[in-house]
Amino acid sequence: MPPGYPSGVAGAQRITLGVDLGGTKIQTVALRGLQTLASARVPTPQSGVADDVIEAILGTIHTTLAQVGCDASAVEGVGIGSPGEIDIAAGVVTQAANVPGFSASVRLGPLVSEALGGMKVRIDNDVRVGVLGEHRVGAGRPYANMLGVWLGTGVGGGLILDGELHDGRGAAGEIGHVVVKPNGRKCGCGRRGCLEAYAGRARMERRARKLVKRGQDTVLFEIMREESKERLTSGIYVKALKHGDELTKQLLADAAWALALALASAQNLLDLDAIVLGGGMGDKLGQAFVDQVVKQMAPHLFADDHPPVVLHTELGDLSGAVGAALLAAEPM
Amino acid sequence: MPPGYPSGVAGAQRITLGVDLGGTKIQTVALRGLQTLASARVPTPQSGVADDVIEAILGTIHTTLAQVGCDASAVEGVGIGSPGEIDIAAGVVTQAANVPGFSASVRLGPLVSEALGGMKVRIDNDVRVGVLGEHRVGAGRPYANMLGVWLGTGVGGGLILDGELHDGRGAAGEIGHVVVKPNGRKCGCGRRGCLEAYAGRARMERRARKLVKRGQDTVLFEIMREESKERLTSGIYVKALKHGDELTKQLLADAAWALALALASAQNLLDLDAIVLGGGMGDKLGQAFVDQVVKQMAPHLFADDHPPVVLHTELGDLSGAVGAALLAAEPM
Repeated sequence: MPPGYPSGVAGAQRITLGVDLGGTKIQTVALRGLQTLASARVPTPQSGVADDVIEAILGTIHTTLAQVGCDASAVEGVGIGSPGEIDIAAGVVTQAANVPGFSASVRLGPLVSEALGGMKVRIDNDVRVGVLGEHRVGAGRPYANMLGVWLGTGVGGGLILDGELHDGRGAAGEIGHVVVKPNGRKCGCGRRGCLEAYAGRARMERRARKLVKRGQDTVLFEIMREESKERLTSGIYVKALKHGDELTKQLLADAAWALALALASAQNLLDLDAIVLGGGMGDKLGQAFVDQVVKQMAPHLFADDHPPVVLHTELGDLSGAVGAALLAAEPM
Repeated sequence: MPPGYPSGVAGAQRITLGVDLGGTKIQTVALRGLQTLASARVPTPQSGVADDVIEAILGTIHTTLAQVGCDASAVEGVGIGSPGEIDIAAGVVTQAANVPGFSASVRLGPLVSEALGGMKVRIDNDVRVGVLGEHRVGAGRPYANMLGVWLGTGVGGGLILDGELHDGRGAAGEIGHVVVKPNGRKCGCGRRGCLEAYAGRARMERRARKLVKRGQDTVLFEIMREESKERLTSGIYVKALKHGDELTKQLLADAAWALALALASAQNLLDLDAIVLGGGMGDKLGQAFVDQVVKQMAPHLFADDHPPVVLHTELGDLSGAVGAALLAAEPM
């Protein structure tokens, strides 16, 4: 049982709900203890109105509860993992630009709480709750000190220290903006040489388009068109890799190189037990990519006879919702 | 009162002793609570025999107790900060190459304990105890999350997270071996581009000698000869700087540049309250150097509207001995 998990009469453990709010989907799960009882997923409404997103969240909560066969009175609380800047105490999300209607401030926690009759609702950063999920239920279970690195559109992270999420002043874990190369590639944050500039999907796509303009060949955009996608998704990279696409290999080699540097530096500073790679790219690229990172990380490790365990996620794209449900059970 | 500090009848707090073992000096202090009662310092014996070093440690302990006017029965315990690899549980120091007689393994804790009639003796890494001292009594007092970076022959560090020293698996804090420039300058550890390769005194001296060979002018080695030193000490850099020495300015600018990158990356990952610069160079260069680092760090901070406080040490070269005495009071 994780620290802070509500104890009680055995078998009478109450249910917690977890919501992973993303720009394309809303994933909700119901947990009893560490066990997932039910889940529901809907596309994130693209209307541009925050109320529609909140309605959709409530919809997944009711669907999940119906599957479990219980009503809100059986629920201990709701956790929500959200992108953007999070005011944990106030339950407010700001600048979650990927979620329609969330570019300004949204009182997400209070609004969901009110709609559920005053239920306890707790919100935190989407990546941090995903890392919490992997730590309590997934790949990170055996480790007290763990860094989770989520490779998606950007690169986020979360730190588990002495078994607990470490928030710092509220923004700990931003490994995506660790500098891997002084004056290196331009990052989405406006700075140069950040890890995210090499290993974030948005910047990788930008790089791909640049190299194609310079005449390099690739199947990446062909696959993208075939699949009627507007962006190079993690799945597209995996397919291109199966075609032996050289540009894809090069982009992933750059990402692995940058990750190896950032992770080795984090390891030298923190002496972690484990590092878990997750997010869309981490989940999809799996062990082969982990191996590539581990190999390049080794030469930079100070305690090179005692490297950390490096793993990919076990819960895949459910880690965020599971972690959010676990968050709901933690003391405020 | 720091966590873990032994409580008791007010005014009847017992005394703890702290020893800072270095390659050139042994510094010992006696503390009651957070107050320094007495101190003693001797040069580290250069005979090459570990027993002589241990005798000298015991000598400073007895001198300190005599100053306080009490005997060993009034002492709660002894803490020792030592260079080298530390087995905290066994009290064993390995490969403290700078301390004569300590290049192999020395049962430092048990040997000192036996000589003091079985007194509780606790050892830890010299930099980490220095950081603990600055956190509990020095510049880091107001901050729960703090990184101490000690600039000496090498660059060491220690992390205070949620108010406690964070050891990881025993080697946390090695910020000196964070990579600031891929394939950059050669470091003493054999790798390339580590922070220590730019900001550690040994590598700075190597760089100075190289630039002098290439024909660059400097007063550094002139001051070194005048002071009958064999190495470029922190004090020599300070004097050369007062002469407006260009080579010194350049070396310190390189060190500040590398520190700025490493500290910004650590900040982005950890979202710290404060960073404290210590060690010989940190103590001697003081606020002007801190300002130089802060200025160059700012552009790399992800949460740039919320930078950490950056400070130099308050206890100077006493931080190690004070921290060791505080360590002696912590629960095992």
